[in-house]
Amino acid sequence: MNNEQLTKYNEIQKLINDQFSFLTELQTPSNLYEPLKYLFEIQGKHIRPLLTILSAGMLGGDLERSLKPAVAIELLHNFTLIHDDIVDNSDMRRGRETIHKKWDSSVGILSGDLLLALAFRHIIKDVHLDCCKDVLLSFTQSLIDVCEGQGFDMDFENRDDVTEDEYFNMIYLKTGKLIENSMLTGGYIAKANDMQNEILKSIGKNLGYAFQLQDDLLDLTAINPKFGKVVGKDLIEGKKTFIIIKAKELFKKQAEIDLLNLFYQNKGLKENQTDQMIKFLDDNMIFDLVNKRIESYYDNIVANLNRFDDNIYKDLLKYQIESIFKRDY
Amino acid sequence: MNNEQLTKYNEIQKLINDQFSFLTELQTPSNLYEPLKYLFEIQGKHIRPLLTILSAGMLGGDLERSLKPAVAIELLHNFTLIHDDIVDNSDMRRGRETIHKKWDSSVGILSGDLLLALAFRHIIKDVHLDCCKDVLLSFTQSLIDVCEGQGFDMDFENRDDVTEDEYFNMIYLKTGKLIENSMLTGGYIAKANDMQNEILKSIGKNLGYAFQLQDDLLDLTAINPKFGKVVGKDLIEGKKTFIIIKAKELFKKQAEIDLLNLFYQNKGLKENQTDQMIKFLDDNMIFDLVNKRIESYYDNIVANLNRFDDNIYKDLLKYQIESIFKRDY
Repeated sequence: MNNEQLTKYNEIQKLINDQFSFLTELQTPSNLYEPLKYLFEIQGKHIRPLLTILSAGMLGGDLERSLKPAVAIELLHNFTLIHDDIVDNSDMRRGRETIHKKWDSSVGILSGDLLLALAFRHIIKDVHLDCCKDVLLSFTQSLIDVCEGQGFDMDFENRDDVTEDEYFNMIYLKTGKLIENSMLTGGYIAKANDMQNEILKSIGKNLGYAFQLQDDLLDLTAINPKFGKVVGKDLIEGKKTFIIIKAKELFKKQAEIDLLNLFYQNKGLKENQTDQMIKFLDDNMIFDLVNKRIESYYDNIVANLNRFDDNIYKDLLKYQIESIFKRDY
Repeated sequence: MNNEQLTKYNEIQKLINDQFSFLTELQTPSNLYEPLKYLFEIQGKHIRPLLTILSAGMLGGDLERSLKPAVAIELLHNFTLIHDDIVDNSDMRRGRETIHKKWDSSVGILSGDLLLALAFRHIIKDVHLDCCKDVLLSFTQSLIDVCEGQGFDMDFENRDDVTEDEYFNMIYLKTGKLIENSMLTGGYIAKANDMQNEILKSIGKNLGYAFQLQDDLLDLTAINPKFGKVVGKDLIEGKKTFIIIKAKELFKKQAEIDLLNLFYQNKGLKENQTDQMIKFLDDNMIFDLVNKRIESYYDNIVANLNRFDDNIYKDLLKYQIESIFKRDY
């Protein structure tokens, strides 16, 4: 990034950060607001709000007007984390105890509900009527999608025959739609035309797939796991990721098949079995295969991005997307 | 009700029922939609949507336009039931197993989230822009209020010094605001003036208080409990209701004070202690006192209702409110 870009980027980050200050003013009932303050003490990467604001800026939209919807999407995202952590029984989030572990499930359920309500208030309070309905409807739809995706994910836990199509549909709903919506919301605010919105949608969709495949890969390959992630957690938890679906297709040796069957039968591996599984996956070039798939999403995104006129927001959006692809946690 | 009123009332009930048909079309993921269909198999009393529609009609609003917001409020109300049942560890609802008991907590959390999302989609999809913001903002605010109220309610479980003011603030947030909002939404849709909305608000607020005090009373006095309610459930669960706050103030005999102390110390009574407590409450005229309080709310509501011009919707609204006061479960 050059100086001008860096200044603009920092400026936008500051605008986003300022949006969260309203949380500090909320006091009682403290049994619900303290957990929310705790969650936001550790800053997330703000991937989604940046996508919204930069998409809006790239297409000539008013930055100020994109802020509240952008941050509402981040609040909604954090709501999904609180409830998913209960459902997945996850102990750690951003390097600290999850809310339901530090407090209890009831606090997790209700503070999550409250955060979702605050997200809606954030977006409704300030939304302008001329793009109101599109922004609100796609915000709401992405919430429905996340819930449905999580429902499918739960359903897959009890199934051994999850297909590649089903898997991609699930991650599209659970992860992709909210990222797609982050881009589209920028388009709505900039009053982009249908073709522009279609491009934004395509970028978001590809980014969502890439993001989830990266997550699955990082779970197995991240050397120095940060933020409380354990290597092979998905294997231990029995998650039917794309990697597992590919293993089912490609494993041919008896030892490989036996270990995979163990994974299915016991709904996950023991900690001391994950290294062996990772070796088998590597032997079958599955990490390479997933990486190539991720690269193809990246190429598609860059090609689509190039269809837009150049400006500083497009540069920053490109930078932002590249940094997602380069992430190592 | 005369014939004309009855016809109109049945017509409105049918319009409300039709609104729920969209649920039957939702199919997958079935692990989340089946529980929602199960919940709505047993029809609720539709108190809130009737308040919205009749308030709108009374003030000359378009009935059709009030339908979607009215039903969205009912969906939101049912969402709160699903999550509250998890938090309160309740086994029964409308005479059947609660969702989290029949399935599990994860299904309860996620199907609840999904229902809330559907409620927002229901209200946003059809809301007209000229009253959009008021309707949406008060809908969202009532969700925040319900969550906060539930937070205070949880907090009270660990406190022995809950005051009457705190109690009334809690039930206003947890129960009253959504009922108030049901009335107000009718006003917004009818484009009522500020004074009319103030009257609606006052009616809703008083109705909410009365409704909750009735609930507390019915828990102890309902002779033939329907819909899975157990007599004295609040006493067993250690709920600090208005009745308990009054007991703390009025109990003077040692046996009474001892039993109340037991209630506080053990966070609830044993099943075989509830009859004694009910007798002590009766000895101290606490049921009469609560009934008088409920009557004063009723008088206030009727006085406020009389300030509106007469029409069939006002008649039906009066009927509806009276039937709430007459309910025995």
